[in-house]
Amino acid sequence: MPGETLICPQCGAPVKTFRNPFPTVDIIIRVGNRIVLIERKNPPLGWALPGGFVDYGESLEAAAVREAKEETGLDLVNLRQFRAYSNPDRDPRQHNISFVFIAEGQGKLEGGDDAARARLFDLDALPAPLCFDHAVIIRDAFIKRL
Amino acid sequence: MPGETLICPQCGAPVKTFRNPFPTVDIIIRVGNRIVLIERKNPPLGWALPGGFVDYGESLEAAAVREAKEETGLDLVNLRQFRAYSNPDRDPRQHNISFVFIAEGQGKLEGGDDAARARLFDLDALPAPLCFDHAVIIRDAFIKRL
Repeated sequence: MPGETLICPQCGAPVKTFRNPFPTVDIIIRVGNRIVLIERKNPPLGWALPGGFVDYGESLEAAAVREAKEETGLDLVNLRQFRAYSNPDRDPRQHNISFVFIAEGQGKLEGGDDAARARLFDLDALPAPLCFDHAVIIRDAFIKRL
Repeated sequence: MPGETLICPQCGAPVKTFRNPFPTVDIIIRVGNRIVLIERKNPPLGWALPGGFVDYGESLEAAAVREAKEETGLDLVNLRQFRAYSNPDRDPRQHNISFVFIAEGQGKLEGGDDAARARLFDLDALPAPLCFDHAVIIRDAFIKRL
């Protein structure tokens, strides 16, 4: 698992790595009065905001645009930072920090990459439960900002 | 360097690591009408906002409180998120993402840990240049929020 000790592929010895939380992005994509959720192809399975890991050398904004395109087929306009969620328990896999963006989506909605499918949902008819802390994130965003 | 290939301590073979940007926090600490800057003990040398790396298992907020205490001796009140700076070139050492907080400081100001000293500055009399993109961050914060 990332963030743990690595194993040398040549001799099997443990190699200590630096331990840092992993930066990820999630995007609240609005299309009209609805938002986009994706159905995850990998565990934890279920519905979630589109998003993923930030690459080394990639800004948060570039990661948001890339992940949105890969998972939903949509292009983002009016991309803005919302806030960060960093509770160490928010993701069951490891300590992932989510930097959340809000944007409007344009183009043809189509699930891809880590998303089995992508769909538009009315805010009062979201599937439950959502993966991770995404229900909290969406509630915070619509109470505070949108 | 973190984020690069590691070397096995037993046999010397290269061990591929995951490459992710490194999450850090920086804090704009207000004391009255002034803000706190620290003089860095390690390269790049110069004046900067207090801050540092986020530990695995530590929230961004906890990291901000810890780093402020270590580097300035101050306790933070009214801590709030400002925004994230993630340009890959913003730190000459490696790709560090800065998550910036704003807070008020209480207690006795005293430089420590990575800070050779800590001092209060009037906003119209900041030292120049500041390290990293901290001059831009401070300008953004005081134009947009404070």
